[in-house]
Amino acid sequence: MRFDHAGIATRDAADLAEPFADLLDAPVVHEETFDGMEVVFLELDGGGFLELLEPTEGGAIADYLDREGPGIHHVAFATDDLPGALDRARDLGVDLVDEEPRPGAWGHEVAFLHPRSTGGVLVEFVEK
Amino acid sequence: MRFDHAGIATRDAADLAEPFADLLDAPVVHEETFDGMEVVFLELDGGGFLELLEPTEGGAIADYLDREGPGIHHVAFATDDLPGALDRARDLGVDLVDEEPRPGAWGHEVAFLHPRSTGGVLVEFVEK
Repeated sequence: MRFDHAGIATRDAADLAEPFADLLDAPVVHEETFDGMEVVFLELDGGGFLELLEPTEGGAIADYLDREGPGIHHVAFATDDLPGALDRARDLGVDLVDEEPRPGAWGHEVAFLHPRSTGGVLVEFVEK
Repeated sequence: MRFDHAGIATRDAADLAEPFADLLDAPVVHEETFDGMEVVFLELDGGGFLELLEPTEGGAIADYLDREGPGIHHVAFATDDLPGALDRARDLGVDLVDEEPRPGAWGHEVAFLHPRSTGGVLVEFVEK
């Protein structure tokens, strides 16, 4: 299970992409509108990404911003076997937000684990 | 600037290390008491770490837990030139928590940037 990205909730993804790109020397490599969000990925040297998430309508990220304000929303780990990773999580007694893989940003399959099982951390698994 | 770790605030680092190690197949590779915290590092496949931070006395992490509850506290990026990275941040108008590198966990030099400059994200720079 490899680090894939830190997901950051923001009210303006384009505006936030600029300082992060400059600060980390991490170019924007992907942008899309997905599931009611503007999503921007910046690629880090050595692998991994920052994912900036700006809601364009109501939903989980809009609710998060209202409740918590902007900041780190989740951390994502990449696997070559997402169904197997979810089975393993279930075997460990971890509560899942997504019982099955579902389509995520950038055409990836994703599933989220419930933060009550992971120390308040919203964990995403990604298979590319 | 490479991904180095996600820092997680918790009330029990040893207790949280176990499910994360199992879930991510990420072994505990370092533990220390540092600056009023129990600190546990888990190493991810492909590079990078999770850093679990449990306060053993009052301080920034204890305050964070009281205010926000457990969860993702910061994200850290590694550089070979921390003073240069701080100069660059200053040039970009980013407010710094640490104007100069200071000793961090695991014997590393670290500096934190102020989240008001980085979309609410507490960013740490690390030089090893």
